Amino acid sequence: MSDLKIAVLGVGMMGADHVARITSRISGARVVVVNDYLTDKAEAVAAGVPGCRAVGDPLDAIADPEVDAVVIATPGSTHEKQLLACLEHGKPVLCEKPLTTDVETSLAVVKREAELGKRLIQVGFMRRFDHEYAQLKALLDAGEFGEALVLHCAHRNPAVPPNFDSAIIVRDSLVHEVDVARFLFGEEIASVQIIRPAANPGAPQGLQDPQIAIFKTVSGKHVDVEVFVTTGVAYEVRTELVGEKGSAMIGLDVGLVRKTSPGSWGGQITPSFKERFGQAYDTEFQRWVDAVARGGTTGDYTDGPTAWDGYAAAAVCEAGVESLNTGLPVEVTLADRGSIEGA
Amino acid sequence: MSDLKIAVLGVGMMGADHVARITSRISGARVVVVNDYLTDKAEAVAAGVPGCRAVGDPLDAIADPEVDAVVIATPGSTHEKQLLACLEHGKPVLCEKPLTTDVETSLAVVKREAELGKRLIQVGFMRRFDHEYAQLKALLDAGEFGEALVLHCAHRNPAVPPNFDSAIIVRDSLVHEVDVARFLFGEEIASVQIIRPAANPGAPQGLQDPQIAIFKTVSGKHVDVEVFVTTGVAYEVRTELVGEKGSAMIGLDVGLVRKTSPGSWGGQITPSFKERFGQAYDTEFQRWVDAVARGGTTGDYTDGPTAWDGYAAAAVCEAGVESLNTGLPVEVTLADRGSIEGA
Amino acid sequence: MSDLKIAVLGVGMMGADHVARITSRISGARVVVVNDYLTDKAEAVAAGVPGCRAVGDPLDAIADPEVDAVVIATPGSTHEKQLLACLEHGKPVLCEKPLTTDVETSLAVVKREAELGKRLIQVGFMRRFDHEYAQLKALLDAGEFGEALVLHCAHRNPAVPPNFDSAIIVRDSLVHEVDVARFLFGEEIASVQIIRPAANPGAPQGLQDPQIAIFKTVSGKHVDVEVFVTTGVAYEVRTELVGEKGSAMIGLDVGLVRKTSPGSWGGQITPSFKERFGQAYDTEFQRWVDAVARGGTTGDYTDGPTAWDGYAAAAVCEAGVESLNTGLPVEVTLADRGSIEGA
Amino acid sequence: MSDLKIAVLGVGMMGADHVARITSRISGARVVVVNDYLTDKAEAVAAGVPGCRAVGDPLDAIADPEVDAVVIATPGSTHEKQLLACLEHGKPVLCEKPLTTDVETSLAVVKREAELGKRLIQVGFMRRFDHEYAQLKALLDAGEFGEALVLHCAHRNPAVPPNFDSAIIVRDSLVHEVDVARFLFGEEIASVQIIRPAANPGAPQGLQDPQIAIFKTVSGKHVDVEVFVTTGVAYEVRTELVGEKGSAMIGLDVGLVRKTSPGSWGGQITPSFKERFGQAYDTEFQRWVDAVARGGTTGDYTDGPTAWDGYAAAAVCEAGVESLNTGLPVEVTLADRGSIEGA
Repeated sequence: MSDLKIAVLGVGMMGADHVARITSRISGARVVVVNDYLTDKAEAVAAGVPGCRAVGDPLDAIADPEVDAVVIATPGSTHEKQLLACLEHGKPVLCEKPLTTDVETSLAVVKREAELGKRLIQVGFMRRFDHEYAQLKALLDAGEFGEALVLHCAHRNPAVPPNFDSAIIVRDSLVHEVDVARFLFGEEIASVQIIRPAANPGAPQGLQDPQIAIFKTVSGKHVDVEVFVTTGVAYEVRTELVGEKGSAMIGLDVGLVRKTSPGSWGGQITPSFKERFGQAYDTEFQRWVDAVARGGTTGDYTDGPTAWDGYAAAAVCEAGVESLNTGLPVEVTLADRGSIEGA
Repeated sequence: MSDLKIAVLGVGMMGADHVARITSRISGARVVVVNDYLTDKAEAVAAGVPGCRAVGDPLDAIADPEVDAVVIATPGSTHEKQLLACLEHGKPVLCEKPLTTDVETSLAVVKREAELGKRLIQVGFMRRFDHEYAQLKALLDAGEFGEALVLHCAHRNPAVPPNFDSAIIVRDSLVHEVDVARFLFGEEIASVQIIRPAANPGAPQGLQDPQIAIFKTVSGKHVDVEVFVTTGVAYEVRTELVGEKGSAMIGLDVGLVRKTSPGSWGGQITPSFKERFGQAYDTEFQRWVDAVARGGTTGDYTDGPTAWDGYAAAAVCEAGVESLNTGLPVEVTLADRGSIEGA
Repeated sequence: MSDLKIAVLGVGMMGADHVARITSRISGARVVVVNDYLTDKAEAVAAGVPGCRAVGDPLDAIADPEVDAVVIATPGSTHEKQLLACLEHGKPVLCEKPLTTDVETSLAVVKREAELGKRLIQVGFMRRFDHEYAQLKALLDAGEFGEALVLHCAHRNPAVPPNFDSAIIVRDSLVHEVDVARFLFGEEIASVQIIRPAANPGAPQGLQDPQIAIFKTVSGKHVDVEVFVTTGVAYEVRTELVGEKGSAMIGLDVGLVRKTSPGSWGGQITPSFKERFGQAYDTEFQRWVDAVARGGTTGDYTDGPTAWDGYAAAAVCEAGVESLNTGLPVEVTLADRGSIEGA
Repeated sequence: MSDLKIAVLGVGMMGADHVARITSRISGARVVVVNDYLTDKAEAVAAGVPGCRAVGDPLDAIADPEVDAVVIATPGSTHEKQLLACLEHGKPVLCEKPLTTDVETSLAVVKREAELGKRLIQVGFMRRFDHEYAQLKALLDAGEFGEALVLHCAHRNPAVPPNFDSAIIVRDSLVHEVDVARFLFGEEIASVQIIRPAANPGAPQGLQDPQIAIFKTVSGKHVDVEVFVTTGVAYEVRTELVGEKGSAMIGLDVGLVRKTSPGSWGGQITPSFKERFGQAYDTEFQRWVDAVARGGTTGDYTDGPTAWDGYAAAAVCEAGVESLNTGLPVEVTLADRGSIEGA
């Protein structure tokens, strides 16, 4: 009945946006604590939110008795320690991807949560909350396409920050398509191959862009993904599912207004992930807040991707980075889920 | 800082949806009082909202000292009295259309508000908050189409309740297009003509459906509207603006998923106004709540259509009902806005 | 078996294109005679076609014993005399619209042909042969939309020649939509009203552009047409048919290639009627040639719009020009078709 | 000036359609001889075409002095002998794909033609004449997309004849995409890999369907192709070109009429290659006939894919069939074009 009181760790672009989201765009929650390694930034954000204070140490923020739940939007390298602290304090946490930065620590987090017997961790794969993906999944589950057979994905960014290297493309961009494939097909990815086409002349020297990723799922379904992050065009995310009884495409990005101008017809195209997935983030947060409210009863404080989903994505990406060097398929080996979740 | 405390008058389909909207989908407001002439219904709705009670008389609800602002979702015939009460108590009010049921009382409300020197009334023409209309308006105002010249509108419902008669089509359906034309063109409508084509064989006996409305604005711009409320198809609202430098269409309703099935391609079409304009209602309410919060300072408690907009729409619809009988153009005469607002 | 030998009267832009069409793009016919009041032009065209000669007088061309059939692409004012000559010589003729320049002479031509008891005249309303209109008509006739109720048309040109006046817009542009409405609905137009919106600032001084035409058919169906001939955009022809069981739109002009460029998606839009209706002209001519080949047996040498269609269009346009001045609906009065065709 | 006199070898579905095409849909050519191993069929087809006779032996048809040029629509196994006969008699020939059934004999044909110093052979890759592919190629060559980087293709048939096996999918279906990739990129394919996803449950037992083909061109460009020939849906051919400055898609198959029906919007989808590529075949034949007419002067009797294009496609498909077994990339080795064409 009373608002869920949230600590937001990390108030960079994403974290600050989450603070605004919780404060102004969803109901049932408010931000009471913010934290950032840049303390000035945290103070400034706190000053703009009624009843919110800045806390200097993320672990103090997690432990704070006023805090009911935690949002992690800090750099990935700090996630492991923060997630484990949330688990120790029994606090529900919505953690931006990646779960952690490597497979081993991701698995450790999965196991620790399993030992507690409560699902406290949700990973921020927000596409599952996007109207288009959700409707595609619903149609698929309703049998509209028969058995799903093949998935074609394209993930295009107009540009990337200067620090991006070829492996970051796998870990930061491709990782979303990993979750999409696992979400839509409902099964794990068994192998991954990264093909290196001739690079975009406009890409920074040394960056392998575009990349083509090929996934094979455990039942043999095929997924291909074009990841191209220096297109200079727009933020384009498109998925085509091919099934036994028909196919479907999302992300054609037809826009709101169809214009006719001298010589041409068409519309505007989404400039960035904020326009494309703003609704998905809002929905993700509202539904997470609602799930946390129910969690005391159910023991399940998530409404979406779990720690396992974060771990599995990490394992596929690690295999992808290996394949980036050889161009050959690399097998993905996962821990035995049953034995862990039965723990 | 603390939530705006709202009374919702009328908890039929629309009012109940507004209660849920304020409670669960927007931030900064909550419902503390509900009222309905069906007291059981009001009690039931109140029971589902923490901290909310049912009040038996709408005027008591308006007067209630706990109530900061009012939402009117009662039948149109009760609006005049309730609006005047809100004005007397100085309470901001979001009133579902129509403002009142006739031109005379609408004008009386406009004048009373003007005398108070505060804008307390917002009328629920929610399309102005729809992403598509908003973007079309923004492009137009940015000069993208040069001068606007012509507007083609289609308003189609799959079916209407049994009580609908030919004049209700004008007052309840066409009225939305009246506001759209005034909003996009930014000027008043000078005359209206209703053409009566051969009726849909599937329409109830005696119902003039479809109807074609022709508006001429004060500067001579042309608007035509097809209103067709027994299509059996879906809820379709489409607008094409033709300008000096190009044209634009909204409402093609391309849907989220483009499917390919044996023999055909396409997608789903919006079944009702709830799917089509759900986002618009949410945005309308969030922005109204935010405007009310600012109103103490600005004296303007609205973020959208004003009482004047409600009055002007009533005047156009009254002329439309007259033309429905003759098929000839009927002039629309409005009061002198300047002398009223200067009051 | 041997090629149909054709005389083409008038080798301006349209006529010269028809010569090329018969020579290189359809089978079963060739041009043996060309005529133009500019004899040099006729000589030049003839020189480019093997076995073709220029003839100085159009009536000599029609009478020429080598000539099996005639294509009239001369100015409208000369059509009456040329059509009557074709009828006297019993030669099939494909006549570009208008049939003649006024209702009276059009009717005279209709009556003369009826007296001969053979259908020798086809009028060049080529849209009936366009793939899109033909498919829309086929779907309608197959019952896909139930009863047709309303038709919305838009006819837009980027620009018109300097001699265009407001009445020419009715006679030359609107006339195509007259035939489309008669073709799709399969009934006559009973009244026409031309509405004069505020003019496009970019239109030549004194030109009423855009114009809005309203047709009512004999059974009461409604048609509205936006004719806008100085858009500066492209050649756009769009038709939406609204029926009892659904609606359909043609002419969205989605083009062949869907491009994604920085900031926008879309495609090219058709620059002129040649790109839009080139296929329709080819199909019209091929089918006319085939119909003429069958005509000796059937007595019907046409595969499309007849002299009556040309006459009816003239009657609607004459009423339209009258309405252009008053803005009021003008009734269309047609001769009694049964008594003429029974002649 | 007089019509090109053509012999059509093979009057099965394709050959009979070509006879109709030459006779009724293009100008400047007629069929004087037909041949088929089913002599009754050849007689029947000849009977329907004025001035056409059936000849029992394809080599006699080629040698016939009345015959100016030859169309080969016989089974692929007979092509080598027929093509060599055409070359010996110096007769232009339009040969349906494949050029021959293996790489070695294809190369032999290429070399024999090169020795003659005339381009007499055109291979029937008709997609190059399709409006959509032609416009995409034109935009690409005009620099609209900058450098071409990646090509995504989908080739879907509703069903295939019972004799289809996994290798035939490569040779008969994939081969079209081989030519499309070579045509658009303007370079040879250096390696091919066939991935075998889990098969469509609806496909015949043992048929590897769908298949995913990956091409790498000599400059490193990436092409992926989904070939899926038992979709049960329609004939779908889609190509997306991704370039340095934007991307473009053809084959979305939006159809002619956009329908709105209860609950859905959309249109019809192309049932077979005849509707999809009928125009391309007509254009191909008209332009070939025109090219042959010019050939006496230029020594080049083709207007499209040459014998080399047939040979290169055969080499890629042969590598594809090899990869079908292993799933690994297979290099494509081509003869030295310069030394052959310089011969």
